[in-house]
Amino acid sequence: MPMVRIELLPGRTREQKARAAREITDAIVRTLGAKPEATQIVFAEVARSDWATAGKLADES
Amino acid sequence: MPMVRIELLPGRTREQKARAAREITDAIVRTLGAKPEATQIVFAEVARSDWATAGKLADES
Amino acid sequence: MPMVRIELLPGRTREQKARAAREITDAIVRTLGAKPEATQIVFAEVARSDWATAGKLADES
Amino acid sequence: MPMVRIELLPGRTREQKARAAREITDAIVRTLGAKPEATQIVFAEVARSDWATAGKLADES
Amino acid sequence: MPMVRIELLPGRTREQKARAAREITDAIVRTLGAKPEATQIVFAEVARSDWATAGKLADES
Amino acid sequence: MPMVRIELLPGRTREQKARAAREITDAIVRTLGAKPEATQIVFAEVARSDWATAGKLADES
Repeated sequence: MPMVRIELLPGRTREQKARAAREITDAIVRTLGAKPEATQIVFAEVARSDWATAGKLADES
Repeated sequence: MPMVRIELLPGRTREQKARAAREITDAIVRTLGAKPEATQIVFAEVARSDWATAGKLADES
Repeated sequence: MPMVRIELLPGRTREQKARAAREITDAIVRTLGAKPEATQIVFAEVARSDWATAGKLADES
Repeated sequence: MPMVRIELLPGRTREQKARAAREITDAIVRTLGAKPEATQIVFAEVARSDWATAGKLADES
Repeated sequence: MPMVRIELLPGRTREQKARAAREITDAIVRTLGAKPEATQIVFAEVARSDWATAGKLADES
Repeated sequence: MPMVRIELLPGRTREQKARAAREITDAIVRTLGAKPEATQIVFAEVARSDWATAGKLADES
């Protein structure tokens, strides 16, 4: 029953996400012994103006 | 102080969410003894292209 | 595929959580048209010393 | 490595979020001894029609 | 209604969290115009053996 | 800046998590073009008595 949530900056194509979903699921099945059909992944895009590191939004120059 | 977060696929109407909020809150108050005014629910829609099961995005045929 | 996460203070019995899981799932199926077997609920207990409202931890007198 | 996630209603300007990111990071560094560059903050806006308190969506009159 | 969730490594005292809750709430009220009593903060400690950066758990030497 | 959160049932060894962290990070770097040092993974174990599918806790027989 692993439930995976991935927050990332926008800009990836649907094909990149499809590959990521496939390969992350494979890694989880291989290393954690999960069943593929019980493994779910959610991608949550976060705009650069909504993500800060060291107190600075990612769209600040 | 229950805080509830519901990730779901898009496509529900506002009226459906309003009913869901009402009935889920009722269930929480009834079964967990929470106060209604302390019970919060957040709906987070996840696009089919952002949700994978068994390594396959939900919009793949 | 609704995925539900419930953060709550400790102190509920297993039986209360079992009833809550049942009734919340029923409410979701009834109001949002989800399939029961696709509806998952996770309870996450948060200690009173880890939950603040208005800047005050819940265990402060 | 604090990772902060803030769910809030829409309506804040980018400048407000920039200031919030700065001041919250300062507070975390000051009180928890975190390194600024290891402190990340994500803002997640939740529409009023997706946030319920006491079983009522925030856009209900 | 800001809801804040802070994932951090263990090791902070209750007093540090109490100060953090107070100062983060102040920062949110000041910069985002939130009401204090509607601002909630949850601390979630993550063990070093459960947090990886660059593919390496935080307790690896 | 991908931030990954994995909720899973207990029972995996530290070594399994270490391998999972390594291989999931590799998959993310390879498919999404993320930098390894910006990729963080958090494992959150959920007890069987805190995870329900189809309204039934995972420890129910």
